[in-house]
Amino acid sequence: MREIGIGLIGTGFMGKTHAIGYSAAAAIFPGCPRAVLRVVSDINQPAAQAMARQFGFQSWNTDWRSLLADPSIEVVSITTPNVMHHEMALAAIAAGKHVHCEKPLAPNAAQAREMMEAAERAGCVTQVGFNYIKNPLLKLAREMIAAGELGEITNFRGIHAEDYMADPQTPYSWRLDPAGGGGAVADLGSHIIGMARFLLGPLSAVNAELETVIKTRPEAPGANARRDVLVDDIARLGLRFAAGFGGSIEANWMASGRKMQLGFEVSGSKGSLVFTQERLNELLHYRAGAAGFVRIESGPAHPPYGLFCVAPGHQLGFNDLKTIEMAEFLMAIDGGPRQGPDFREAWEIQKIIDTAIASSREKRWMEID
Amino acid sequence: MREIGIGLIGTGFMGKTHAIGYSAAAAIFPGCPRAVLRVVSDINQPAAQAMARQFGFQSWNTDWRSLLADPSIEVVSITTPNVMHHEMALAAIAAGKHVHCEKPLAPNAAQAREMMEAAERAGCVTQVGFNYIKNPLLKLAREMIAAGELGEITNFRGIHAEDYMADPQTPYSWRLDPAGGGGAVADLGSHIIGMARFLLGPLSAVNAELETVIKTRPEAPGANARRDVLVDDIARLGLRFAAGFGGSIEANWMASGRKMQLGFEVSGSKGSLVFTQERLNELLHYRAGAAGFVRIESGPAHPPYGLFCVAPGHQLGFNDLKTIEMAEFLMAIDGGPRQGPDFREAWEIQKIIDTAIASSREKRWMEID
Amino acid sequence: MREIGIGLIGTGFMGKTHAIGYSAAAAIFPGCPRAVLRVVSDINQPAAQAMARQFGFQSWNTDWRSLLADPSIEVVSITTPNVMHHEMALAAIAAGKHVHCEKPLAPNAAQAREMMEAAERAGCVTQVGFNYIKNPLLKLAREMIAAGELGEITNFRGIHAEDYMADPQTPYSWRLDPAGGGGAVADLGSHIIGMARFLLGPLSAVNAELETVIKTRPEAPGANARRDVLVDDIARLGLRFAAGFGGSIEANWMASGRKMQLGFEVSGSKGSLVFTQERLNELLHYRAGAAGFVRIESGPAHPPYGLFCVAPGHQLGFNDLKTIEMAEFLMAIDGGPRQGPDFREAWEIQKIIDTAIASSREKRWMEID
Amino acid sequence: MREIGIGLIGTGFMGKTHAIGYSAAAAIFPGCPRAVLRVVSDINQPAAQAMARQFGFQSWNTDWRSLLADPSIEVVSITTPNVMHHEMALAAIAAGKHVHCEKPLAPNAAQAREMMEAAERAGCVTQVGFNYIKNPLLKLAREMIAAGELGEITNFRGIHAEDYMADPQTPYSWRLDPAGGGGAVADLGSHIIGMARFLLGPLSAVNAELETVIKTRPEAPGANARRDVLVDDIARLGLRFAAGFGGSIEANWMASGRKMQLGFEVSGSKGSLVFTQERLNELLHYRAGAAGFVRIESGPAHPPYGLFCVAPGHQLGFNDLKTIEMAEFLMAIDGGPRQGPDFREAWEIQKIIDTAIASSREKRWMEID
Repeated sequence: MREIGIGLIGTGFMGKTHAIGYSAAAAIFPGCPRAVLRVVSDINQPAAQAMARQFGFQSWNTDWRSLLADPSIEVVSITTPNVMHHEMALAAIAAGKHVHCEKPLAPNAAQAREMMEAAERAGCVTQVGFNYIKNPLLKLAREMIAAGELGEITNFRGIHAEDYMADPQTPYSWRLDPAGGGGAVADLGSHIIGMARFLLGPLSAVNAELETVIKTRPEAPGANARRDVLVDDIARLGLRFAAGFGGSIEANWMASGRKMQLGFEVSGSKGSLVFTQERLNELLHYRAGAAGFVRIESGPAHPPYGLFCVAPGHQLGFNDLKTIEMAEFLMAIDGGPRQGPDFREAWEIQKIIDTAIASSREKRWMEID
Repeated sequence: MREIGIGLIGTGFMGKTHAIGYSAAAAIFPGCPRAVLRVVSDINQPAAQAMARQFGFQSWNTDWRSLLADPSIEVVSITTPNVMHHEMALAAIAAGKHVHCEKPLAPNAAQAREMMEAAERAGCVTQVGFNYIKNPLLKLAREMIAAGELGEITNFRGIHAEDYMADPQTPYSWRLDPAGGGGAVADLGSHIIGMARFLLGPLSAVNAELETVIKTRPEAPGANARRDVLVDDIARLGLRFAAGFGGSIEANWMASGRKMQLGFEVSGSKGSLVFTQERLNELLHYRAGAAGFVRIESGPAHPPYGLFCVAPGHQLGFNDLKTIEMAEFLMAIDGGPRQGPDFREAWEIQKIIDTAIASSREKRWMEID
Repeated sequence: MREIGIGLIGTGFMGKTHAIGYSAAAAIFPGCPRAVLRVVSDINQPAAQAMARQFGFQSWNTDWRSLLADPSIEVVSITTPNVMHHEMALAAIAAGKHVHCEKPLAPNAAQAREMMEAAERAGCVTQVGFNYIKNPLLKLAREMIAAGELGEITNFRGIHAEDYMADPQTPYSWRLDPAGGGGAVADLGSHIIGMARFLLGPLSAVNAELETVIKTRPEAPGANARRDVLVDDIARLGLRFAAGFGGSIEANWMASGRKMQLGFEVSGSKGSLVFTQERLNELLHYRAGAAGFVRIESGPAHPPYGLFCVAPGHQLGFNDLKTIEMAEFLMAIDGGPRQGPDFREAWEIQKIIDTAIASSREKRWMEID
Repeated sequence: MREIGIGLIGTGFMGKTHAIGYSAAAAIFPGCPRAVLRVVSDINQPAAQAMARQFGFQSWNTDWRSLLADPSIEVVSITTPNVMHHEMALAAIAAGKHVHCEKPLAPNAAQAREMMEAAERAGCVTQVGFNYIKNPLLKLAREMIAAGELGEITNFRGIHAEDYMADPQTPYSWRLDPAGGGGAVADLGSHIIGMARFLLGPLSAVNAELETVIKTRPEAPGANARRDVLVDDIARLGLRFAAGFGGSIEANWMASGRKMQLGFEVSGSKGSLVFTQERLNELLHYRAGAAGFVRIESGPAHPPYGLFCVAPGHQLGFNDLKTIEMAEFLMAIDGGPRQGPDFREAWEIQKIIDTAIASSREKRWMEID
């Protein structure tokens, strides 16, 4: 079986998730190349060392550039704060690597475009971590919509709300750094925007209201000094899709009690679909004229669920979605279909975010691009 | 026990609901005057006759003006299409009646204001049929918010979506007549706007997109000829509340599969509340730091539930909400507190609808009033 | 319209519910005779008086026997503690009245049989208050089962659990008086046993374990003295149905947190149905081979829902179920179909309760009758 | 990091699940020895070969005995049909291996006891695949019960119902072979019995009705010839726990529409807990006096969730539960705490199953042991 050497930059939440996904991919997916965890890099030395030991990386370092020089590494995974993606990805591409970069791809569309263009020129395979759309039930949803099972689409209502910033005493952090791009609109909005595109195709225009609810936050945990917050806590977007219908999105990191309210309702003349990541193994489907909504439970009828478990109703978890993402990426590198989302798709999403920010500033509808 | 003579105009969905509510009010609410069903009026004679027989009205007629002349009638209930509310209500007020009028009160705020001013000048008691806020759990929600249990409010997300117009072949009807006011924004939007105000107080500005999805409909059931639709099928509103926070509303009568998706999520710094009329006896409450949402089931702890049933969990239905509305109205006439919503409140709601329509036309945020 | 004079004995929870149901019946059901509330009787004089005033009874008294002598009374409703049903019902029958008696009909099957035989000899119409089966969705369930939509039935799992006796300090009361029959098995079990019969026909055998969890309770609220409890708090029944399949029932009045967990799952070779009174307007249906369960929401497609509300999804409440029961009873008196459950059906249910008590004592399966 | 050589017997549903769990364990659990997949054995050669390739086993064979002779193998995982567990486990123990064996451990308690005694004599670490109790929320439930948060326990209602045998045309298979032990009572019942013990401690007596609903099944897929079924399709158990309270269990593999209805409601004087594997990341908790049930969502507050994901609400899946099981097993071999369930626990469960079978035959309550 083909082996692919992995270099990972970053050891936080997403760093671990990448390592887990790479490790599991070949076992779950027949024909998937085996990911070999070569090097992990983090400026925090103990973190790099611990990560290497736990996940079995062959070595670790604190200098991501040295990782790029390693010829045994074919793939670079970038899981650092957004503001660093651009420099790292360009360097990895220049070094001839395939690149997985966490979302959002860049602080703005201009940087995202540079990254996309560099990757396409270099012919490298790219992947961006919009993991939630890897859910087998979302593939089913997309297929049902494409097959016309909902008829003419009339509305999309999307939400990504969590509460990790709900407490006004939660201190300033890199997520609030405007150099990294937007706030909730980028961190959460990128997921639901990506999901909207995955299901329904391109957007044509957006009308956004971005709001900074907590104007200052402690500079650090427990600090008395406070720092101004310049990015949005809540973003409310009106949408127009290229296919002609409209919709709305709310991205909100202050939604008390919500840990993963990422979901949508898509309505059409012949039916509708309802989903929330809070119950990621369920998809509600209404067919016009039916007695009610059907609760579809995920199972082997929804590939690639069956690769994880041969019996229905046993349920996938978050890390399984990441494993699907990693397996598809590895198989694409091995010549399989490129299922994305790649840097181009992430650039498309970033353009919408940039337009939303501009729209909010100018208080008017703005076209995408 | 005091008796109050009722004259009802209209025998449709709401006409029946009024008759049911009036009939039940005194039995359920101790101290509530007994409503005596005197006269029902409908231009459709068989409908008027059948209604009188079924509900025990003492007489019926086909001329609503004659009903106003009846001195035994103290209260007039208006349940005709919106376009007729203005004329009927003014005449009833002029005849010295107390008036219940179904929502939306008028096709526009100017007419609503006239009606409100006439009523206030005449000192008559008015009521408008925003029945859903009569739910004991919504009173609880309002009290919790007022008591600061959610902390500083950060967001309101409201929806009223149903599917009675989802089929493009559903023919033209009075609901689509622009002379009656808006489409979904008025028919459904008025409910969720009223609920937003009930819970959170006045709005200061709105930014709306109103969309006519089905541009023409059959002139009549089965007709080949089609008629242009000029009112909105879907309305998406950005909101600013006077208290300083924002929110959104969707009013949508094309939401396939939804029969009563009227609900909200209110978030604050210390907690949140989630409600949907689809499960009207449940209210979800999250308190910051708790292990999760509590599902509050309606019961005698939530007045006036206990008047309907002494045991918790037995559940109220739609008609019970209407009974509460009618009982409060009758008791107000009898000198009790005026709990509304009255014509003034309905005028406030209508101003928001008018502003939403204007905002959609001008594609910009507009202040209320 | 025909009028039927009502005499009501008892002014507690069920007394009020009867008055509400009688009052609403004719308004909701076209062709239903109008119930005229003639006399209410209660040994507690202020209660009788207050009830008369609130519901508009023409008179009240404290002697139920005098009520029977009133020739303007055609129907007697008995809502007193179980131990008194037998004497009252026999007297009412002897006085030529039609009789509604709350459940359970009697403390034991022998008394129930006497009552049934007397009623049948007298030709009077009887009704027993198993109100939950009046739910339109349960009629739908019964029809679906009868039409073979579930195929061969393989299992019935029934529960009626509440928590009004969960607190060991809840004092002794008439519900615990063994003279009134069983404990939870009678008070709650009778509902779910009746529901099982309504859906699936007669039982042939039962194997029960009845358990008194709290052996003594305070004699009265706050009392130090304690009284032995002799009836069951929890009853667990194995069932065999005459049609050949098996099942189980739990009746439990100590189920902390449950206010109305009355429900079932019926499974068959071609599908299943799931219901809980906690969401009484929803019925889950699975058809073999389908993608999942359909959530059927109650609506006009499920008679007599449409008489309450012409629009789907608006929801019935508990009192509406009682109104259906009363309307069917009144219409049966007026010559309409006798839909029951009548005294004969209540006797059948009581035989099962008696057999369960005996089975628990003898610790073995026992046949019904 | 310590490495532990694994030999796996069997390549079916559970075989794959073991391989996935072993592969993931060390990456997720800091300090967990790394499982090295040495040999996979299956009498079906292509299956063994494919499995080896996909999961990276170093070799494969078709003779499980040869696997035992391999000194590089420290752990043997047995995932073959139940009837073979006894011989294989005894041989593995004799060969000095630690043994993981899928549930149910043996066709009867006598064999299970032999296996347990052999293992304890040999001092080897054993594990049995009752994976569902590895759910962090079930550990929480156990802790809450142990800490008295539910007060005195009054009732346990357990269910494990699925529908993989609901179709009468589903052919005969090893699951129906009485040599392997019971039917649904063993295959599914063992899970919910194990869960009951995990939460509430030992059972003292059982009163069971086991029922073979489909008396004959096709000998093979599509065959005309039919074979008698001798094991149960549905098992209904009355329970007594050693701690003094009662309960019930239903094990049912004919529950149309149910894919994973494994759950319980535990009630006590101070509260209750409700769980279903259909939503494995949610646990409902009611505390006496509260406004309703709290829906606890799994998160880092519930170890070892945080090892899989640092953010709450992201959700674990079925394979993650198996990973927890494997990690705990590997760490126990490495000297960590033995968390089980081990062969002794599986023997305890098997005794209950045997007693249930005997009880059903004798139609009476029987004590455990």
